[in-house]
Amino acid sequence: MRQKAGQLIPVAPTAVEIRDHFWAPRLRVNRRIALFHQYRMLERTGHLEALRLAWKPGDPNPPHIFWESDTAKWLEAACLSLATHTDAKLQGLVDQVIALLAGAQGKDGYLNAHFTVVEPGKRFTNLRDNHELYCAGHLIEAGVAHFQATGDSTLLNVVRRYADYIDSTFGPGPDQRRGYPGHEEIELALVKLYRATREARYLHLAKFFLDQRGQTPNFFIAEAKTRGETTAPSFAPAYYQAHIPVRRQKEAVGHAVRAMYLYAGMADVAAETGDVALHAACQRLWANVTTCKMYVTGGIGARHEGEAFGENYELPNLTAYAETCAAIGLVLLAHRMIRLEPISQYADVLERALYNGVLAGVSCDGREYFYVNPLASLGRHHRQPWYGCACCPPNLARLLAGLGGYIYSVAPGALYVHLFIGGSARLELDGQRVQFTQETRYPYAGTVDFTIRTARPAHFVLCLRLPDWCRGDYGLAINGRQTRPAAHQGYLHLERTWSDGDQVRLDLPMPVERMVADPRVADAANCVALQRGPLVYCLEQADHDVDIHTLRLSDRAKIRARTDARRLGGTVVLEGSAYSQRHAALYAPLGRPSKVRSTHFRAVPYHLWDNRQPGAMRVWLPRAF
Amino acid sequence: MRQKAGQLIPVAPTAVEIRDHFWAPRLRVNRRIALFHQYRMLERTGHLEALRLAWKPGDPNPPHIFWESDTAKWLEAACLSLATHTDAKLQGLVDQVIALLAGAQGKDGYLNAHFTVVEPGKRFTNLRDNHELYCAGHLIEAGVAHFQATGDSTLLNVVRRYADYIDSTFGPGPDQRRGYPGHEEIELALVKLYRATREARYLHLAKFFLDQRGQTPNFFIAEAKTRGETTAPSFAPAYYQAHIPVRRQKEAVGHAVRAMYLYAGMADVAAETGDVALHAACQRLWANVTTCKMYVTGGIGARHEGEAFGENYELPNLTAYAETCAAIGLVLLAHRMIRLEPISQYADVLERALYNGVLAGVSCDGREYFYVNPLASLGRHHRQPWYGCACCPPNLARLLAGLGGYIYSVAPGALYVHLFIGGSARLELDGQRVQFTQETRYPYAGTVDFTIRTARPAHFVLCLRLPDWCRGDYGLAINGRQTRPAAHQGYLHLERTWSDGDQVRLDLPMPVERMVADPRVADAANCVALQRGPLVYCLEQADHDVDIHTLRLSDRAKIRARTDARRLGGTVVLEGSAYSQRHAALYAPLGRPSKVRSTHFRAVPYHLWDNRQPGAMRVWLPRAF
Repeated sequence: MRQKAGQLIPVAPTAVEIRDHFWAPRLRVNRRIALFHQYRMLERTGHLEALRLAWKPGDPNPPHIFWESDTAKWLEAACLSLATHTDAKLQGLVDQVIALLAGAQGKDGYLNAHFTVVEPGKRFTNLRDNHELYCAGHLIEAGVAHFQATGDSTLLNVVRRYADYIDSTFGPGPDQRRGYPGHEEIELALVKLYRATREARYLHLAKFFLDQRGQTPNFFIAEAKTRGETTAPSFAPAYYQAHIPVRRQKEAVGHAVRAMYLYAGMADVAAETGDVALHAACQRLWANVTTCKMYVTGGIGARHEGEAFGENYELPNLTAYAETCAAIGLVLLAHRMIRLEPISQYADVLERALYNGVLAGVSCDGREYFYVNPLASLGRHHRQPWYGCACCPPNLARLLAGLGGYIYSVAPGALYVHLFIGGSARLELDGQRVQFTQETRYPYAGTVDFTIRTARPAHFVLCLRLPDWCRGDYGLAINGRQTRPAAHQGYLHLERTWSDGDQVRLDLPMPVERMVADPRVADAANCVALQRGPLVYCLEQADHDVDIHTLRLSDRAKIRARTDARRLGGTVVLEGSAYSQRHAALYAPLGRPSKVRSTHFRAVPYHLWDNRQPGAMRVWLPRAF
Repeated sequence: MRQKAGQLIPVAPTAVEIRDHFWAPRLRVNRRIALFHQYRMLERTGHLEALRLAWKPGDPNPPHIFWESDTAKWLEAACLSLATHTDAKLQGLVDQVIALLAGAQGKDGYLNAHFTVVEPGKRFTNLRDNHELYCAGHLIEAGVAHFQATGDSTLLNVVRRYADYIDSTFGPGPDQRRGYPGHEEIELALVKLYRATREARYLHLAKFFLDQRGQTPNFFIAEAKTRGETTAPSFAPAYYQAHIPVRRQKEAVGHAVRAMYLYAGMADVAAETGDVALHAACQRLWANVTTCKMYVTGGIGARHEGEAFGENYELPNLTAYAETCAAIGLVLLAHRMIRLEPISQYADVLERALYNGVLAGVSCDGREYFYVNPLASLGRHHRQPWYGCACCPPNLARLLAGLGGYIYSVAPGALYVHLFIGGSARLELDGQRVQFTQETRYPYAGTVDFTIRTARPAHFVLCLRLPDWCRGDYGLAINGRQTRPAAHQGYLHLERTWSDGDQVRLDLPMPVERMVADPRVADAANCVALQRGPLVYCLEQADHDVDIHTLRLSDRAKIRARTDARRLGGTVVLEGSAYSQRHAALYAPLGRPSKVRSTHFRAVPYHLWDNRQPGAMRVWLPRAF
């Protein structure tokens, strides 16, 4: 059965201008600081030099198997940036990197420096571990982004040649291989390439990789035998989501980033093919992730070991892994789930991850990054300028550079607003041009003013997401007149013939909420996490005299939200009274006198933590008895 | 300055007979099942065959660098067992293993199969990683145990030759090396050897290893350079407690087992030399471990990474490492701290670790072992019959086989009772023979009856530990007459001229206590751990219909202790009412209706968990609001 009708097409980032107090400064830092900082790091670590293929045995610093993925993500980020903001210097760097990539490509289209100069005989001999197809996927995404940003098909042609080579190598044909990547990514990239070129082969190859995955006999086990491997592999097939066919998967397992990229690819193929079983698998896996395996910050992948999902409700705070790339992967998946079905929970989760787990990944100055995102720290966890495995920094850069693409979708006769971000979008709704603007202090204030500019009246349904954090007591007015439309799957539907200058005001009260977790989350038992609007808050030692880990919060304590224009570059802090508790011994019977003193606390948005002097942090705060 | 006077000399296990309801059956399982099971595993894994030195390059299963330590710990356990319980079959196995060890020894005294047949050129080239001195220490302990158990000096002579070889290799002399072991153990072993032989060289060598440790320039860094090592080591010197000289160490850091063995060796050398600075360092490190880095079970070493201590109060439950060997190491250290100072907190911690963190390491049937001891489980953590790194099983076996040695100490004119374990001890107090017996249902009941048998009246102080879990409302009677002696540093001092047949009854009420942790232990916030007497309890899924992780315990709920003669081989369970809490969503605002239902809970001693069908477990129980 097929179901392609009713899909929501995302409005491209090139059609969206972000112009607000919150994101615009961050995107500026991303464009002007982070992209150049990252380029320098790619240069310094030898990522770019590697593409000259000059490395010889005995030389230091051999090209690593997945360096192309870092370079490609940076390139994609730079292209997305150039698509909305011209920058001659950045353009120059992009052109250089593209030239290097083109020069590193083999005559047959293959493109991976490591397997060209370091282990030339080992090409595609270990799909389980060697990341070639993962790198290829990122190169393809970069090629599409470059083409869409500039109209120049130089890089697109390079990656098409590589995709064609892969397509000739893998497939159901008699001389083709039945394998699939140990680190998924190429599936979603091939759908992007298909969408950019309308070349059906790429979609078929994406579907082929998905269909092969987890079949019996297991490809990775057979492949290891072929290599003559005698030692047991570090991970079982479930680590690679290759334990059973994808359509039968129900629980998110294994490496969290790989899982997200796989599910995103599944959603993409489902969107293009109308494959109901694939869509249903996505829905099941989404439900498992977001109701059993997600931190309140939108972080996922609780375990350090294998950067992997734990069991349901296994969500430790101090030892949370919650890789930045995994939260980004959740955004990518949510974005694709929205395309398949306009249900607000997808955008709710997207927003939770974006404003918390993802945004925490980069420092305010754009020069330091978190790879791991715990929900509590004793003071030794800090952002780093770079990582040996540098997947997260350029992944953040490309997400931010393409942020405009996550705000809106259109469907026949409908405009969906998923995120409340000030700026404007140039839309085509049923062939008619509409300019749509948002003005808001979101996420610090819940009032959003929408304005419609259109040459002639346009009839469409304006669908505004009612966020999950809103308890329902919102206000909505069209041209100053209050209205209370029905909500459909979490979206307020305003159907009308819109005229030029029509204004809509959405008023979302933003009280401070004490969030509690499902009681099965052992590590959040009897604790609350403070949330206001989409922002999850945390305590930092920098704002406190007493050890923040001794603080207890009364359920009745009034918590005040206050704009603090100077702290952390300007933010809204939460303040109130709390108790600081001390015991005489490490363990003592309940009821033995323990010193309690009343004190004040100040919470700051989680995404802003670790931007001052080093210190402890915690999200989940014990309730006071 | 020297301070040797006033030391407490432990009563040897050979002078103690354990005859009770709790330990005696476990020690029987240890003697009759565990020791033979472990011997078979040593045989099956090639530990014993390795000692024939028949391995050749190309052969499978090369002898591992630390196999001798496993074999030696087993041998020590077997000898301790033979010292109190003859067993011809076990004696035969011991003789065989000793013959193998003697045969594997080089002409120069060196004894390590790996560096004899696998990497013969690498002897003592990597003290940081290669465990040769660690293995040597365990061999020495086995040699002393064998001599003390049997009077036979065969193995003692073997290990003396090895110790002499090491003594000639390491030292301050012009042709000697200044190194020290990456895994401590030989220090405490050399003191044992010194005590058994009165050969001062061994004590000096122990002191030399301690004194060299952490000096600048760092030996491990220099040694790595000598080897021409170019890759960075996995761990910094602090992992090996080699970051600063031992006398200046204040915080327990790095690998927890190594730390315990080091501190134990420091305490031993302090006891023999009266080195006040060394003793003070032990006191500081002890205080740090037991007030900031110890689980309520007596487990230590919170982190999986490096099997290491975390920061102060970093005590996660689900991901606790708490290696069995580390809890054993804490017992070993406590035992030595008692020798230096009769303060009850040492025995309090010894008891906490012994009855909880250590004893959990072995299944009731003696055939399965925990290496890692979390304080919460989602159901997938289970004991294994053996481990690739098999340090814990024989370590448990030797601790249990020598348990009698931890109960009593004597000092001039004084008998100290540290543990309440039924049985009898043959003592010499100021030259007079005394037989001292305990009868008790401890740890399930707090009444202990002591009887003194002596040919003629004997004047001494009987010092009974008043456990930290006792709130002070104890009863004490001599020959039926209540008395209330002063407590000195946690010991009740009964000074009198004791006559044959004198009886003392100590009555320790054992209410169920709800223990709370220092508020800085983030992962125990707003939770209680149930404890009764020395036993820490846990909930197991096997005793509950509802998910135990949803349970909340009211502070007011009455908790009943009930003897359950059938459950888990007979134990005392704790029962009461609790709430099971459910939420509609993974995260929701506090106050949104959540389903609560009243239910019952049953807690079992932590050391007995995972002896039934697999399932979830937790120690820290959230309090109900």
